[in-house]
Amino acid sequence: MFRLVRRLGPLKPTTLLKSRFYSGAQPKPPNTDILIKSLIFTAGSIVGGYLYSSEVQQSTKSTLPIDQVTSPEYANKEQLAQAIEAVKKVFRKNTPDYDESLIINSSQEDKDSHSDTYFNSYHPEPNEEPQYVIYPRSTEEVSEVLKICNKYKVPVVPITGKSSLEGHFINTRRGVCIDISLMDEVIELNQQDLDIKVQAGLGWETLADYLSEYNLLFPIDPGPGASIGGICANNASGTNASRYGECYKNVLSLTVVLADGTIIKTKNRPRKSSAGYNLNSLFIGSEGTLGIITEATLKLYVKPKIERVAVVPFKSIQDAANSVNSYLLNGMQLNAIELLDDKMMSCINASGETSRKWTEAPTLFLKIGGSNDKVVQSTVDQVKTLSSQHNSIDFQFARNDEETEELWSARKVALWSTINQGRVTDPSIKLWTTDAAVPISKLPQFLEETKEDIANNGLENTLVAHIGDGNAHSFILYKPDQYKLAEKVVDNMVRRAIAYEGTCTGEHGVGLGKRQFLLEEVGGDAVDLMRNIKLHLDPSRILNPDKIFQIDPKESRSH
Amino acid sequence: MFRLVRRLGPLKPTTLLKSRFYSGAQPKPPNTDILIKSLIFTAGSIVGGYLYSSEVQQSTKSTLPIDQVTSPEYANKEQLAQAIEAVKKVFRKNTPDYDESLIINSSQEDKDSHSDTYFNSYHPEPNEEPQYVIYPRSTEEVSEVLKICNKYKVPVVPITGKSSLEGHFINTRRGVCIDISLMDEVIELNQQDLDIKVQAGLGWETLADYLSEYNLLFPIDPGPGASIGGICANNASGTNASRYGECYKNVLSLTVVLADGTIIKTKNRPRKSSAGYNLNSLFIGSEGTLGIITEATLKLYVKPKIERVAVVPFKSIQDAANSVNSYLLNGMQLNAIELLDDKMMSCINASGETSRKWTEAPTLFLKIGGSNDKVVQSTVDQVKTLSSQHNSIDFQFARNDEETEELWSARKVALWSTINQGRVTDPSIKLWTTDAAVPISKLPQFLEETKEDIANNGLENTLVAHIGDGNAHSFILYKPDQYKLAEKVVDNMVRRAIAYEGTCTGEHGVGLGKRQFLLEEVGGDAVDLMRNIKLHLDPSRILNPDKIFQIDPKESRSH
Repeated sequence: MFRLVRRLGPLKPTTLLKSRFYSGAQPKPPNTDILIKSLIFTAGSIVGGYLYSSEVQQSTKSTLPIDQVTSPEYANKEQLAQAIEAVKKVFRKNTPDYDESLIINSSQEDKDSHSDTYFNSYHPEPNEEPQYVIYPRSTEEVSEVLKICNKYKVPVVPITGKSSLEGHFINTRRGVCIDISLMDEVIELNQQDLDIKVQAGLGWETLADYLSEYNLLFPIDPGPGASIGGICANNASGTNASRYGECYKNVLSLTVVLADGTIIKTKNRPRKSSAGYNLNSLFIGSEGTLGIITEATLKLYVKPKIERVAVVPFKSIQDAANSVNSYLLNGMQLNAIELLDDKMMSCINASGETSRKWTEAPTLFLKIGGSNDKVVQSTVDQVKTLSSQHNSIDFQFARNDEETEELWSARKVALWSTINQGRVTDPSIKLWTTDAAVPISKLPQFLEETKEDIANNGLENTLVAHIGDGNAHSFILYKPDQYKLAEKVVDNMVRRAIAYEGTCTGEHGVGLGKRQFLLEEVGGDAVDLMRNIKLHLDPSRILNPDKIFQIDPKESRSH
Repeated sequence: MFRLVRRLGPLKPTTLLKSRFYSGAQPKPPNTDILIKSLIFTAGSIVGGYLYSSEVQQSTKSTLPIDQVTSPEYANKEQLAQAIEAVKKVFRKNTPDYDESLIINSSQEDKDSHSDTYFNSYHPEPNEEPQYVIYPRSTEEVSEVLKICNKYKVPVVPITGKSSLEGHFINTRRGVCIDISLMDEVIELNQQDLDIKVQAGLGWETLADYLSEYNLLFPIDPGPGASIGGICANNASGTNASRYGECYKNVLSLTVVLADGTIIKTKNRPRKSSAGYNLNSLFIGSEGTLGIITEATLKLYVKPKIERVAVVPFKSIQDAANSVNSYLLNGMQLNAIELLDDKMMSCINASGETSRKWTEAPTLFLKIGGSNDKVVQSTVDQVKTLSSQHNSIDFQFARNDEETEELWSARKVALWSTINQGRVTDPSIKLWTTDAAVPISKLPQFLEETKEDIANNGLENTLVAHIGDGNAHSFILYKPDQYKLAEKVVDNMVRRAIAYEGTCTGEHGVGLGKRQFLLEEVGGDAVDLMRNIKLHLDPSRILNPDKIFQIDPKESRSH
C-alpha cells in the first residue's frame, strides 16, 4: 500500500483505490529494531485507524474481481537485462563449457518459432514475441530461472510442443519464453505398477513408441507434436478419452515449479489417493498460469490384447448418434468412438492418402478391443446388429492388424486431407481448428446446425467428433481476407455449445481465444475465484500472463 | 496491518511480525474525500518507505507457511448470538410458519449426534461440539447463512452423512454445524446424456436404488450412510473404483457456496471440458475447507448388461496379487477386484451372516461384466485358467443373479462381521478402520508386514483391499484401554505405505487424523501451497477449521 502510493507520484485516486484492493503485497517483518519500526507503524495506525471496520470487511472475500486489481508492473529493459545476466550466471555455474547460445537465445529465428504457428487460431500482434528463449535442462534450473524472473518481474511463457491452438503461448508481455523441450527423458518405468515418470518435454508419440515395446499404453493422444508438459497444462485428451478419460484422470503425480521457484511434488504414485487438495488437477488445465510442470508420473494401461477397427457409414448424423447410444445402452465399452461427417469423408477420398475409397456419408470409426478373439468377435457381431437397426449403409471390419491399421488410417489423415483439399482451390488457404463439447444427446443437433451455419456463411468445413464424449472439432477453411468471417462462425459454434449446456472447449483449452466464452460458460464469480487463486500463487503475475482470464483491468484485446 | 497493531495494544513484536505476514486483510478504498485520505496515506508512506524493497520481496511468495500466519480470531459469545439471531431472521423471512427448532437446534442431543460416531478413529475433546446445528433447505439459504457466519467469523462445520472416519466433522472451534441432510432431492435426470443433478444431502444408497430403475449406475460406493456432499468433499470411492475411477473422475459439475456466501457453478454438464481451472477437483477432496457443496451433477453409466461374481481363494496374498496382475497383463477389465484376508474370511464364517462356509484363506472377490453371455463366459474361463496358474485353491462362480447376490454378500458383511467377532470376546470392543494405498506391486508385502506388525502388538485385525487400486483397509479391534496401542499400529501402517511411495489415505481423506502424514507424504511446500489457497478463498478461516492441515500456529493437537 505504501509502495503503491509512493510509486504513483501525483495521486491518482482511482488507481490508488484499485491498488489498495490487490492483496498480493504484504510487508516483510523487520528483523531488527522491531520496536522502533513498530512504533512507526503505530503512528501510521492512528491516521489509518478509521479503516478498521471496512478493512475487516474487505478482508473476507472469497473471489477477486478484475476491477479490484491494479495493472501488473513488469521488468523494464534494464531489469530484464539484469535478470538475463543472472540467468546466464546460473547456467555458467552449472556447465562452464556449455554453448550459451543454445541455452539463452535471442535470435529472430528463435523468437519467431516461439511466437506462433500455422495452426494457431489467434495470432500475435506485431511485437508480441519473447525477448529471449531460455532452455533449462532440469527442474532445478527451471527453479533458478523462475526465482530470478519472479525477483525482476519478468513475464514468462512456458513452452513444450507448441501444438496448442488458442494462442496459449503468445508472449503478450514481451518477456521470456521458457522452452523445456530439452527435458525429454524417461525417468522411471514401473512396469508392474503400470506407471511411468517422464520429463515434461517428452513428446507423446515418442512415449507411445517407447511403451509399445512393453505392450503398455498412455491413453492421451492429442494432435501430433504435443509433449507431456503441454498435454498436462491443457488437460488434453483425444480419441481414447471415451474409454480411458482425459489427461487429469491419467496423471498420478507432478513435479511443478511455482512462480517463486519453489519446487513441489503433488503426490506419491499410488493409483488412488484422497490425501489433501487435488494439486494434480489444479495444475492440469491451468495452462502454465500457476506453475511450470517439469515432470509427470503417468498412469499406464496394458494394451488391449486384441483391438480391431470397424468403419460404419450412416444415412445421417442422427442415425450414427442413435447407433452409438444403442451401444452404450447395451453396456458395451468400445475403445474409441469417432464420427467423421460426409465432407470429411470426401476430403479423405480426394486426398488419396488412404488405399481405398470411402462412402461419403457420416461415418463411425470404432475401436473394439478385448482379451481374446471370442470376446472381440461377439462384440463386433453385436455392434453390426445394432448399427443395422439405425440405418447403417455399410459395415467394414478389419480381420487382422494390417487391416486395422489401414481402416484407422482414414481417421488419422482427417486434418491434413482437409488442408490439402483447401489448397487445391487456394494455395494461401488458412485453417481454423476449434473444439467444443455438449451433452451427448445434443450432439447431432449441434453438429447439423453448425454445418448449416458455416455453409450459409460461404465457408468450407469438415467435422470430426469424439462422439462418445460429445466433443466436436470443426476444421474451417478460409482465405486470408475471410478471417473475421471464420471468427464469426467459430463464435457461433462455441456459443451454440454453451447454449446446449456444453463447454467452449472439450480438450483444446482457453488460451487467449476463449477467455470471453469461459466467462459466458461458468460466470463471473467462478472466474473471479480462479483469478483469486492465480494472483496468490503468482502474486507478480509473471506466469503466462493474460491466458484463461484477464489479469489486467487495462488489457482489453477481444482475443 | 493497522488493525492488528491497534488491537494488540502493548506491542508484542513477534505477534506483530507474524500478523503483518498474513495476507488476508486489505484496506477498503475510501469512497469519499479520496484526496484527503490519500494524503494521510502519503504521510504514512514516507515513514513506511524504507519497507519498499522488502515489501516487494514478501509479496512474491507462492506458498503460505504456518509460521507466517497469525491465529484466527473467531466470534465471541455475543457475536455468535448476534449471528444466530441474523440466521433466524433469514429463515423466518423464508418460511414464517416454520418450526424454528427444526432449522436451528441447540439441544444436547443434536450437538452430540453432530460431534462424533462409533466409527470415528479420532474423537472430539470434551467441549468440542457445535453450539448450534443449522439445517438449510436450499443453496440460497446456505449462502445466506455463510454470509452471516463470515461476517461474524463464526466457525462452520458442514455435515451430510456423518460417515467419515478421521475426525472430519469434529467442531474444534465450537462454532456451528451446517447439516444439509434436508437437501436430498434428485433435481434432474438426463437419461440420454448419462448424467443426473442431485442435492448434496442425498444418500448414495438411495441414489443407487433410484438409478437402478433406469438400469443406470453412479459408481461411487463408499461406506453405508454416506451422502453425495460428503462423498465429493472426501473424494470417496469404493469397490467400483478400479473400473470407474474415484469420485473426482465422476462429477461433471458442482454448485458450491464459498466462505463469503458467493454461489458458484463449476462447469456446465458436458462429459469433457478443458475450460479453465478444474474447480470440480479443487472442491472434491477439500473436506469442506474451501466451500460447501450443495448440488452435484454426476456422471452415470449403463449397468453392465450381465454381471457375475467369482470367489477365488489362494494359498497366499502374494499368489492372489500375482493372479490379479496376470488378469491386468492380459488386458482384462474386471468390474471389481477385492481381496479379503484369511482372518476376514474366518470372521465372515463365524458371523454366520452368509449362507455358506468359506475357505479361510486370502480370497479374491471378482465382478465380471459384459454385454452378452458369450463375452462374460469367455472372460470367466480366462480368469479361472489364470487363477489356477497362481495357486488358486478353489473357484466359485455365480451362474445367475441370485448366486451373484449370494457370493457378493460375503464382501458386504466384512466390516460388521469383524465387529461382531470382536464383541464375542469383549462387548465394549472398539474398531479402528483406516486406509492407505501403495503402488500395486508393493501391496502384498505391505499387507503381510501390516498383518505381522498388528499381530506382534497383540491386536486382532482383518484386512480388505481394493487390490486393483493398491488400496487397503485395516479393521483393528481394540479394548478401550488399548487406544494408544491401536494408534501406534495404525501410524506404522500409514508410514509403511508412504515409505512404499504410497499415500496415507486412498479414499477416506485426511480430516484431523492424518494431517501429520499428509505433511510426510507431500512435504511442507505442497501443504503450504494448499494453505495459501485456503486462506485466500476463506480469509476468516471459518470453513471446517483445522482439517487437512494446520491453519493456526498455536493449535498443536497431535490428531
